[in-house]
Amino acid sequence: MIIPMAERMNGVRASEIRELLKFTARSEVISFAGGLPAPELFPVREIEAAAVSALDHEGARVLQYSTTEGDPRLREIIAARMNRVRGTHRTADEVLITAGSQQGLDLSGKIFLDAGDVVLCESPTYIGAIQALRIFQPRFVEVPTDDGGMIIEALARRLAAEPRARVIYVVPDFQNPTGRRWPMERRRALLEAAARHAVVVIEDSPYAELAFDGPPLPAIQSMDGRGQVVFLGTFSKTFCPGLRLGWVAGPAELVEKYVLVKQGADLHTSTLPQRLLQLYLDRHDFDAHIQRIRALYHCRCNVMLEAMDRFFPPAVHYTRPRGGLFLWVELPEQLNARELLAASLAENVAFVPGGAFYPNGGHEHTIRLNFSNMPEERIREGIRRLARVIRNFLADAPVAETTSVNARA
Amino acid sequence: MIIPMAERMNGVRASEIRELLKFTARSEVISFAGGLPAPELFPVREIEAAAVSALDHEGARVLQYSTTEGDPRLREIIAARMNRVRGTHRTADEVLITAGSQQGLDLSGKIFLDAGDVVLCESPTYIGAIQALRIFQPRFVEVPTDDGGMIIEALARRLAAEPRARVIYVVPDFQNPTGRRWPMERRRALLEAAARHAVVVIEDSPYAELAFDGPPLPAIQSMDGRGQVVFLGTFSKTFCPGLRLGWVAGPAELVEKYVLVKQGADLHTSTLPQRLLQLYLDRHDFDAHIQRIRALYHCRCNVMLEAMDRFFPPAVHYTRPRGGLFLWVELPEQLNARELLAASLAENVAFVPGGAFYPNGGHEHTIRLNFSNMPEERIREGIRRLARVIRNFLADAPVAETTSVNARA
Repeated sequence: MIIPMAERMNGVRASEIRELLKFTARSEVISFAGGLPAPELFPVREIEAAAVSALDHEGARVLQYSTTEGDPRLREIIAARMNRVRGTHRTADEVLITAGSQQGLDLSGKIFLDAGDVVLCESPTYIGAIQALRIFQPRFVEVPTDDGGMIIEALARRLAAEPRARVIYVVPDFQNPTGRRWPMERRRALLEAAARHAVVVIEDSPYAELAFDGPPLPAIQSMDGRGQVVFLGTFSKTFCPGLRLGWVAGPAELVEKYVLVKQGADLHTSTLPQRLLQLYLDRHDFDAHIQRIRALYHCRCNVMLEAMDRFFPPAVHYTRPRGGLFLWVELPEQLNARELLAASLAENVAFVPGGAFYPNGGHEHTIRLNFSNMPEERIREGIRRLARVIRNFLADAPVAETTSVNARA
Repeated sequence: MIIPMAERMNGVRASEIRELLKFTARSEVISFAGGLPAPELFPVREIEAAAVSALDHEGARVLQYSTTEGDPRLREIIAARMNRVRGTHRTADEVLITAGSQQGLDLSGKIFLDAGDVVLCESPTYIGAIQALRIFQPRFVEVPTDDGGMIIEALARRLAAEPRARVIYVVPDFQNPTGRRWPMERRRALLEAAARHAVVVIEDSPYAELAFDGPPLPAIQSMDGRGQVVFLGTFSKTFCPGLRLGWVAGPAELVEKYVLVKQGADLHTSTLPQRLLQLYLDRHDFDAHIQRIRALYHCRCNVMLEAMDRFFPPAVHYTRPRGGLFLWVELPEQLNARELLAASLAENVAFVPGGAFYPNGGHEHTIRLNFSNMPEERIREGIRRLARVIRNFLADAPVAETTSVNARA
């Protein structure tokens, strides 16, 4: 029997990254796809000790139903840490524990989007946000970006032109997919532009603490005087992703709505994982742990950039991130990254074609590369092979230099 | 700033059960509210051993991102067990691991419901399903029930009268809130009625294995020849609820949609909890464990019924469940359960007013009682106090016997 489905299901399709990850599970593949953190830095021993002590001393409690809002002590730690590290002014009551920040995106769509409403986002933007929000049938309006993130004049023009604008979605710190970070003046300018409209700003910030040099920049939320910014945080990149632990922080009257909607979605986030994280944060030096992750990713990013500088043809352009997990490649416009991927997979090298990060399509000459999950020698070897594949494609389709320069604008 | 919200947020409000649970956390309260399983039967030692061995031997893997579908071995165990215990014919590929069966409800709403579509459900029905589905703005059409569950002739008439019927939602085994179980002929009749319409049947089955006498009945899905039934399962009542582990099982072409939609919602269910459950199921006698839970709940249910038989006035009627966690009370119609609750809480006894289980309201003279979470002597004492409160109310509002008899029809 053909069962009729909701209209929103028309836009739902499988993620390319996910299909790729299946392939990249084979050990011979050098994967620059996915966004996996380096598992060698997961605090496995510390988590095991936390599990033993939680189950020894409060087994019944950490296995029982708990409140939708999440572990009170964990919310307290998160609020205090955000305030210290990112300059915000949140109380524990203004923090909701979620199943990763991905759930924060799903809840945001439910709360703010009717079909036909407009989401303004960076062009390109995080593929998981496109997927989470698309099911609520918005229209995505892409705002042009440069090396400093979203171009705010362009945002302001689009806000003025779109009466149904409801959500501004941004990843201001070492963005997925480009690795770019917005400077302070852009953050301030965003708030000024948003202040003239009744829209919510979703600040998705998984990578801010993974800055290679210096402390993270203040969150956009830290400067929000109007209660207009919802902050999505996650422990996936700084602790481990498999436990699915993130949070939503924002003005109490908005966070209340997230709590209500989360209750219908899954009652609450898994209790034991929350306790494991809380015990870890109470017992160990989280700043020092993050410092180790930053150092490793900095090194891997450098290795990747050095190999790209050496092996890639000059017509290929790329970002030079100062943090995070990703960098972004623009090929000469004649090249198609999906075709390139097929050839690259034949050489056991995987990446994600950049077109998937544009909600309205196009930009098929772009590529996202992840540098966090492979050891140095495999990064070098993978880039060497990828460069060879690119050179072969260029040999078949000679480059018009002006086109490739325009493509970076 | 007032941020505009989606239209669907108009129907969203806090659950009464949840507000009550906050109150019932005080240790002096005898709580028949909530639906907490007995924590003294959580397999804490076994889970701890599983945690140690998972983190010792594959720490990086159980803390890393994993597939949306869930742990392959766990899906295999679930399919085999369902097929053995509930008579279904599922493969591991037709099972998706979810964050409790509550997430299965949320995903179902996303997949099948446009605003204005009709959900047919038992009257009364599970409050969490009302909450999960309401956000997709359906119209709930309540189908009358009797001691054998949904009255199928009434369902058939409503199906014929409602061209926008899309979902039939049922809890056929020891239903929450009534404790009733559908006999086999109702299950077959439901499928016959549904077969004439392009609707999906959501079979929500958290309590089937908690039958006090004899094995569980076959799932409705086991007799589904048309690929029309989606089965929602959970380990919350047979293992522990805090880990948030449930599943969706159904025809491959439907389960595929659940996978896609879940990916946008939270990427995947927490990895470590899945492994803990899988190791537990592979190492221990789950049937014997469930038998211990059944025996305890049977005993507690008997104690509650004996106390009610002894202390409740004859004008109060109630179900006599043969499994599950709940029983259902119908007071004389003049009484209002919400007012009764206020007086009862003053005596430190909590329950859930039954009106909350009717999506279209009314029925304020009903009550849901949970018997799984309190030891025997507290059940007896709580029922004694509750009976006193009811008698006081009845003294103020004398009962018309005919009305209360009609109220049971």
